[in-house]
Amino acid sequence: MQANTHYAHGGNIYALSPTGSWLDFSANINPMGLMSAVRTALTEHMDAVMHYPDPEARELKAALAEHYALPADNIIVGNGVAELIYLFFQVVRPHRVLIPVPSFGDYERAASAAHCVVQHILLRPEAGFLPDRKKMQQAAAVTDCLILGNPNNPTGTLVTQADLLPLLETMQAGRQWLLVDESFMDFCEERVDATLKQLVQAYPYLVVLQSLTKFYAMPGLRLGYAVASRELVQRLEAAKDVWNVNALAQFAGVAALAQPAYDAASRSLVRQEADYLTAELEHLPGLRVLPGAANFRLVDIHGTGCTSSELTAALRARGVLVRDCANFAGLDDGYLRLAVRTHEENKQFLSHMEAVLA
Amino acid sequence: MQANTHYAHGGNIYALSPTGSWLDFSANINPMGLMSAVRTALTEHMDAVMHYPDPEARELKAALAEHYALPADNIIVGNGVAELIYLFFQVVRPHRVLIPVPSFGDYERAASAAHCVVQHILLRPEAGFLPDRKKMQQAAAVTDCLILGNPNNPTGTLVTQADLLPLLETMQAGRQWLLVDESFMDFCEERVDATLKQLVQAYPYLVVLQSLTKFYAMPGLRLGYAVASRELVQRLEAAKDVWNVNALAQFAGVAALAQPAYDAASRSLVRQEADYLTAELEHLPGLRVLPGAANFRLVDIHGTGCTSSELTAALRARGVLVRDCANFAGLDDGYLRLAVRTHEENKQFLSHMEAVLA
Repeated sequence: MQANTHYAHGGNIYALSPTGSWLDFSANINPMGLMSAVRTALTEHMDAVMHYPDPEARELKAALAEHYALPADNIIVGNGVAELIYLFFQVVRPHRVLIPVPSFGDYERAASAAHCVVQHILLRPEAGFLPDRKKMQQAAAVTDCLILGNPNNPTGTLVTQADLLPLLETMQAGRQWLLVDESFMDFCEERVDATLKQLVQAYPYLVVLQSLTKFYAMPGLRLGYAVASRELVQRLEAAKDVWNVNALAQFAGVAALAQPAYDAASRSLVRQEADYLTAELEHLPGLRVLPGAANFRLVDIHGTGCTSSELTAALRARGVLVRDCANFAGLDDGYLRLAVRTHEENKQFLSHMEAVLA
Repeated sequence: MQANTHYAHGGNIYALSPTGSWLDFSANINPMGLMSAVRTALTEHMDAVMHYPDPEARELKAALAEHYALPADNIIVGNGVAELIYLFFQVVRPHRVLIPVPSFGDYERAASAAHCVVQHILLRPEAGFLPDRKKMQQAAAVTDCLILGNPNNPTGTLVTQADLLPLLETMQAGRQWLLVDESFMDFCEERVDATLKQLVQAYPYLVVLQSLTKFYAMPGLRLGYAVASRELVQRLEAAKDVWNVNALAQFAGVAALAQPAYDAASRSLVRQEADYLTAELEHLPGLRVLPGAANFRLVDIHGTGCTSSELTAALRARGVLVRDCANFAGLDDGYLRLAVRTHEENKQFLSHMEAVLA
């Protein structure tokens, strides 16, 4: 009942594949896969499952504080970033929540579960799905909370600090919450100019969220964090149990954050393969790949004459999963979202796509 | 900041031990330890961490439904039972919550986080901490929700279905919630006569909760479930993200529930060792062990002339962790809670306790 169509997500590999396994382009996971240091940490710490996780996640918070140059007291860790999104809305309960769409569907699902009144502001394809600053400021003036992804899912668009600062200033002055989900930020070359993480001490109504399991290829373990004012961190901590981040996720996070070589190699691989995938897809009839800053691309398929559900079904019959974007508010049935995978997987995918479009 | 004294728990092994490692009698984990079938499942499914967990937890719910003879549609799985307790209060937000105390401190912490008005009803040592039926009925008449552990933590007391049915009937008639936490029920020989799990379809205001990580010795993985009316299950599902139970916990749960021999052996070991520990402790000066139905015992130390914090500190200096019960509402500083461990560990513990009391 959770996986109803309205809020269905990518990455659901648990249905039976016609080919025995799935070629999964629907989940936005780092194509580098699980790093060996994390695999080693999981094996070595297997016995840790017999003990409660550290309720204060001391080592993990210290590793996050160092890696992202943040004060540990402003960090709260979560059972995936999704837990923290639901927790924020349950605890803070802003009356009106503004969401630029298309964006991650759980922003709306989480806000609705906390009885917030959700309003959309439409990002337009003709503007490359980039927010119109003036319209965004106007809409933000009459809300209690704005939540946006940066880079945004599924559009892949990235906005800079310079773009966001006026909005942040206005919302801070109005004591309105600004939530920025930077779950795909580590994939971006431009992250230093785009992240707002370092600003939470100066702006107490700013919350920055980040998943750790997309970039470190371990979504099955669940791990994310938020950076916020100390006061909000304490309110959120008080409203959840203290063992929310399992012991293996804590050890895996510490191990992953200690390997900067993986970070650089991941960004390099993703950029290279995104360029390859984009160029090859645009050779296929009717496809237009939108520019993106993260490890996935939104593909406009209107030119193919097929709907997204038709293409998704045809690919699925070949054991290939893609993200049909028709259930994203603000998109019609003319878009697919594709993960950027390894060169070999991208090649396989391209031949399936070519066959399906033929 | 989470581990403040007021709500501090047992099982926190992450501080440095004076002896290099902890002899942990503070966490109520099955002394049989992690079963080899679970260890194998974790190793074999290591690559599952690269994928999102099954959002519908199909295999796990099917295994729970079979093992506990419950309809799968009435089951919701959680990131530990603690997550489900917080979720219930955040979603349902009963105005007044009645808690017989002493009991698990997070009942109150979770209810308070959802702004419920918490009221206590005192379980009295002279009644063996068993609830007085008449007083309980009277107190329950003026509440919106009653939450109790069965067997109860830290008292170890068990009440039967026959004891609880009149209360359940009254609360059902008044549309008042009854939450029963059966997290230690699998340790009890008398569980068939005590569990209320099978009654949730008949009583829509009944919620039964159960941890799976105490009995299966994997609290680091986080896994619990609740049984409730389908309507409540759907409300709770809608208010959390769909990936709340990590992939390894799902595989571990399925593997654990398939090994009934472990269940029987665990109950047998715990009964035998609880008897041994009780008999030996009562030979020590000033200790009185309260009868208990689960894998831990509440020990009345008033006769020693020491406070619980003094004894806890003296044991801690020897690398031994016990649960100082002074922060349980309804208990003073004259109680310790001890886990029942393996024979070898129990022997070691007894010699430390003897030395400390000498």
